[in-house]
Amino acid sequence: MSTKKKIGILGASGYTGAELVRLLLRHPRVEIAVLTADRRAGQMMGDVFPQFAPYDLPRLVTIDEVDWANAGLDLVFCALPHATTQKVLKDVFAKAPDVKIVDLSADFRLEDPAAYAKWYGHEHHALELQKEAVYGLAEIYRRDIKKARLVANPGCYTTCAQLPLIPLLKAKAIEPDEIVIDAKSGMTGAGRSAKEEMLFSEVSEGFNAYGVGQHRHMAELDQEFSKAAGKDVVVSFTPHLLPMNRGIFSTIYVRGRRGKIAQDLHEILVKQYEKEPFVHVLPFGKTPHSRHVRGSNMTFIGVAADRIAGRAIIVSTLDNLTKGASGQAVQNMNLVLGFPETAGVDQPPMFP
Amino acid sequence: MSTKKKIGILGASGYTGAELVRLLLRHPRVEIAVLTADRRAGQMMGDVFPQFAPYDLPRLVTIDEVDWANAGLDLVFCALPHATTQKVLKDVFAKAPDVKIVDLSADFRLEDPAAYAKWYGHEHHALELQKEAVYGLAEIYRRDIKKARLVANPGCYTTCAQLPLIPLLKAKAIEPDEIVIDAKSGMTGAGRSAKEEMLFSEVSEGFNAYGVGQHRHMAELDQEFSKAAGKDVVVSFTPHLLPMNRGIFSTIYVRGRRGKIAQDLHEILVKQYEKEPFVHVLPFGKTPHSRHVRGSNMTFIGVAADRIAGRAIIVSTLDNLTKGASGQAVQNMNLVLGFPETAGVDQPPMFP
Amino acid sequence: MSTKKKIGILGASGYTGAELVRLLLRHPRVEIAVLTADRRAGQMMGDVFPQFAPYDLPRLVTIDEVDWANAGLDLVFCALPHATTQKVLKDVFAKAPDVKIVDLSADFRLEDPAAYAKWYGHEHHALELQKEAVYGLAEIYRRDIKKARLVANPGCYTTCAQLPLIPLLKAKAIEPDEIVIDAKSGMTGAGRSAKEEMLFSEVSEGFNAYGVGQHRHMAELDQEFSKAAGKDVVVSFTPHLLPMNRGIFSTIYVRGRRGKIAQDLHEILVKQYEKEPFVHVLPFGKTPHSRHVRGSNMTFIGVAADRIAGRAIIVSTLDNLTKGASGQAVQNMNLVLGFPETAGVDQPPMFP
Amino acid sequence: MSTKKKIGILGASGYTGAELVRLLLRHPRVEIAVLTADRRAGQMMGDVFPQFAPYDLPRLVTIDEVDWANAGLDLVFCALPHATTQKVLKDVFAKAPDVKIVDLSADFRLEDPAAYAKWYGHEHHALELQKEAVYGLAEIYRRDIKKARLVANPGCYTTCAQLPLIPLLKAKAIEPDEIVIDAKSGMTGAGRSAKEEMLFSEVSEGFNAYGVGQHRHMAELDQEFSKAAGKDVVVSFTPHLLPMNRGIFSTIYVRGRRGKIAQDLHEILVKQYEKEPFVHVLPFGKTPHSRHVRGSNMTFIGVAADRIAGRAIIVSTLDNLTKGASGQAVQNMNLVLGFPETAGVDQPPMFP
Repeated sequence: MSTKKKIGILGASGYTGAELVRLLLRHPRVEIAVLTADRRAGQMMGDVFPQFAPYDLPRLVTIDEVDWANAGLDLVFCALPHATTQKVLKDVFAKAPDVKIVDLSADFRLEDPAAYAKWYGHEHHALELQKEAVYGLAEIYRRDIKKARLVANPGCYTTCAQLPLIPLLKAKAIEPDEIVIDAKSGMTGAGRSAKEEMLFSEVSEGFNAYGVGQHRHMAELDQEFSKAAGKDVVVSFTPHLLPMNRGIFSTIYVRGRRGKIAQDLHEILVKQYEKEPFVHVLPFGKTPHSRHVRGSNMTFIGVAADRIAGRAIIVSTLDNLTKGASGQAVQNMNLVLGFPETAGVDQPPMFP
Repeated sequence: MSTKKKIGILGASGYTGAELVRLLLRHPRVEIAVLTADRRAGQMMGDVFPQFAPYDLPRLVTIDEVDWANAGLDLVFCALPHATTQKVLKDVFAKAPDVKIVDLSADFRLEDPAAYAKWYGHEHHALELQKEAVYGLAEIYRRDIKKARLVANPGCYTTCAQLPLIPLLKAKAIEPDEIVIDAKSGMTGAGRSAKEEMLFSEVSEGFNAYGVGQHRHMAELDQEFSKAAGKDVVVSFTPHLLPMNRGIFSTIYVRGRRGKIAQDLHEILVKQYEKEPFVHVLPFGKTPHSRHVRGSNMTFIGVAADRIAGRAIIVSTLDNLTKGASGQAVQNMNLVLGFPETAGVDQPPMFP
Repeated sequence: MSTKKKIGILGASGYTGAELVRLLLRHPRVEIAVLTADRRAGQMMGDVFPQFAPYDLPRLVTIDEVDWANAGLDLVFCALPHATTQKVLKDVFAKAPDVKIVDLSADFRLEDPAAYAKWYGHEHHALELQKEAVYGLAEIYRRDIKKARLVANPGCYTTCAQLPLIPLLKAKAIEPDEIVIDAKSGMTGAGRSAKEEMLFSEVSEGFNAYGVGQHRHMAELDQEFSKAAGKDVVVSFTPHLLPMNRGIFSTIYVRGRRGKIAQDLHEILVKQYEKEPFVHVLPFGKTPHSRHVRGSNMTFIGVAADRIAGRAIIVSTLDNLTKGASGQAVQNMNLVLGFPETAGVDQPPMFP
Repeated sequence: MSTKKKIGILGASGYTGAELVRLLLRHPRVEIAVLTADRRAGQMMGDVFPQFAPYDLPRLVTIDEVDWANAGLDLVFCALPHATTQKVLKDVFAKAPDVKIVDLSADFRLEDPAAYAKWYGHEHHALELQKEAVYGLAEIYRRDIKKARLVANPGCYTTCAQLPLIPLLKAKAIEPDEIVIDAKSGMTGAGRSAKEEMLFSEVSEGFNAYGVGQHRHMAELDQEFSKAAGKDVVVSFTPHLLPMNRGIFSTIYVRGRRGKIAQDLHEILVKQYEKEPFVHVLPFGKTPHSRHVRGSNMTFIGVAADRIAGRAIIVSTLDNLTKGASGQAVQNMNLVLGFPETAGVDQPPMFP
């Protein structure tokens, strides 16, 4: 159809690239016009991800091969590694200033250049773009996203923690200084690069923490939690790797403030999200399973009382490749391009 | 929309029931009007499968609670256990003779009452319906299915073996007396009943065969292979259980006939399926992975030469819950109700 | 050999029973003389656990069939369900007062009858035995265990949390009121009974919490932590289920006390455990993987600094069937019978 | 103890190296004196495999750093990659002609230099050693192994297929021209090198064949089957990868010869193996699970009748790292050094 918007995906040979293709192939309003993958350029998408062999998709090219000025792209998803992204996007905007971009890397998520430099060990290479970027957590920044040229798609761990905690911090319903987030991720969150510690035989039948006390995702949490609380918030956050493919699961320990107990926290979240298509709050005392959101753009949240008076345990889960990355990116695309927000990301979870 | 057809699902609390709901929720031409589950009657679908909690679905009822004469159902999927099905469907047709039925059990797949009695140990309880039933392998019997009132949806193992072998048997390109089918299934193929041997701790990190030399699926294979070959065909078939959820994978050993070699067999399959939406034949010498069809209605088929002259190895794979059960059932519904054959089952595979 | 001690196992058809058999078959000082399994009585152990088919083991009998007075048993492992155990052991001691018992259930772990009644919902049926029972955490109560007739083998979650925390609480090095234990267990911890939620297809590729805010293991933690701290300690504890067979993994969030920082906590644990055969403390800042203790009686502990000043993250892991149950039980048997403590439980971990 | 034999392991940083260490650490008659790993030289074994951190083991060195003439090694296990092995072992024997070697690579398994050149694409670099090498399938060549200086430890797939088939071929009980071997392996069989297709996210929840029609293991099967049958035997053999760590599982389709039926084949195997410590033949009609041999040196074999008259289905399973590699290597060491054959490899399987 002539009215379909033309979409590009930079970095299509990784898992978030594949997930974008999966979702966009059945999106009613777009067509995939450009797919890049520098090391796999010249190959078909079906060579890199055999599940797409039966589909008619453009051949993979290098980023340099894209004729940005004339490609006629309406929106580009950028699923490139950290740091590379800054350079590439500056170049893309130089050649095609009207294109919209949803960036899935961490490069444009931090507003404060000093925070960026501290966590990433170097100055940001595209500060002017960083100023323009809108943080793409639709449930919080929907209005700004609609007007954005550059959307910084949030991280998977951080989306999973922010959706339950931001409304509670805004409502001043929990102590901002006593938050513990114990987070667990499926292996696709670690990407597709060939590393010994990511081999099946190293991962299967085992569990471990990593980046204990120092994970980069903390910078993003600090920023958004501090904005929500109106004061500096620093949380305890430990990421772990689960022997499974998809899913982020956060167990969050909080203390109620000003007499708020677990039921009050639950009520705040129920109200906040009752009309949101992609956030589902379970009945009080019930907690969700990661398997029940698999393959969907849903976040499931549960709240239970701890046996320690005044404390609550909040559980939040989503699919790291969908709501934690590519699904949220399509949701952001829908906002940016004026489509219904659920278009192409309304498929139910796949369980079992 | 007023034009949507009304659908019922009998046995919605099992895995094929859940898969039907997953697919039908996004089917553009139907609405789910009735869900039954005798032991879970009164509960919501979200109590039985929490992934559906956010969706608006009818409450589960018993089969007896359905007012068949007035329910206005256009088509019913029957996902009940063997033998129960015969009795229930006879009753449904008695009360609602115009409803269409796609039955996912094995009850109406065997044309020969003697074969049924031999493999199942008792006389068939609905012989007149059995005569009317059309075997629902759309790629072979599409024309008949369109006119059917009762479609017997094929089994998962048998679909996976028939799609590559029936064209070869029809073309008399392989020896019908030397076929070995080594078949492997994900655990969802074993259903949702609570049995010790199906516990995670019994299944994970292990592999086994079952029903060696005597599996009931052989009756269905015998029937269809014999029809295709024009003579009695009896194959060696061994089913195994894989420590994974979804996927059937068949490794098939054949000998070419009349000088036909592996490349010839490949060519026959390529021609047979070049226009089929749900069968993809890989380039000669390549064999598919089960993971690349997961969650989709696709069958992937590969053909390679064995090093023994004249012999070939054929690999076929599909998702047992989709093309092996509920996806094929929706494909059959589409044929029966006159919808485009791919409606609601056109989602790409989900990998990883 | 005539000098081997005779051992009985009550409840040999469960996973802890199988693990006891695995360990005892190669223990140099004992022989397995009695195996009970009421529902499988009359069968061979190889019928219930085919891995033991090649071994010469006594046929399974019911508990009632055991001639306690004349069986000549030196020690009995009891791997029966909760509550049943109290009744059975009272009876065993009545008939064979000189036998030693290592009980793997929770029945004799709580010293306070009121705590037992509160958490288990009924009065304890063998209060006099409860008084006599010694809590079997060898690293803490070794001296008492050597003299015990009845050893209450600790739980898997609680062993994993106590080994790192008890020395810190005793040293008053951490705040007892701010302990958060986020615990994850492999599926064998849930036992072998056939339940829908434990099926492979329900568990694989997913993660969930359970018993949030109210798990029974908390009673055992309260008791031992309060003893160690010399004051009432109540911790936040959330158990989760991992899609894998073996392993307990605890991520523990603590705040140092009296100026103690993470390095100090690490030093306390290094000193405490430097001569223990079954506890290994990693270098400061490193945290262990559950897979690296699989199949062994080892506990691996790591300590890292949180980025929040004064806070530390402690990670502890063990194999729930070995150090978390049957291995610890054999360790206790060794103490009770005067064998070297590592006899029969000195096999290295099995990875991968 | 002064009487312990000194053992070296070349290539200790791979999975078969780790499995050798696991087994030898508890072997009563040997001590590990040398561990090499060229790329990890200088590190401790606990850096490469953290499960060994608590054990006192020699630091990893390069092969060149070993002072072969003076190291006093009694036996060396060689777990190096193909082709490298030939060169290294020629050099080792030049410097230490009295050392015994058990080689786990494929380099010395093929007696015929032409077969080697055909399958590996180059001339053999140590033909004189190849002549001397004894094929290390203890159940068949026990007498020769005891006198060997160089033992070529069999492959995992081939051990699993030979143990059931060689006695049947020797007895001329099956048709040698109609053997189909459908073989499945756990992922550890693919080694520890970092490759995209071996990542957890690529492997989990999926199944595939590889090397279809052309796998190198066939050369080893051809050689041994032809010797057993007294004529050239060429089998159909397809290897597959299972989403699990340990286990080889072979489903073997055969036709009885000279009126032999499945029961006759079973009887031959029962007689052949009734006194073997590491081969267990199940009752007729029962087939084994891979999980029930995990971590042990056992092979479990089952025989069932096919429904096609005269045909049988044989199932054979072992742990690819133990009986399929390192366990069998220790068994061979025991024979070479005159120890009891089961020393150090008598631990029962670990299930679950």
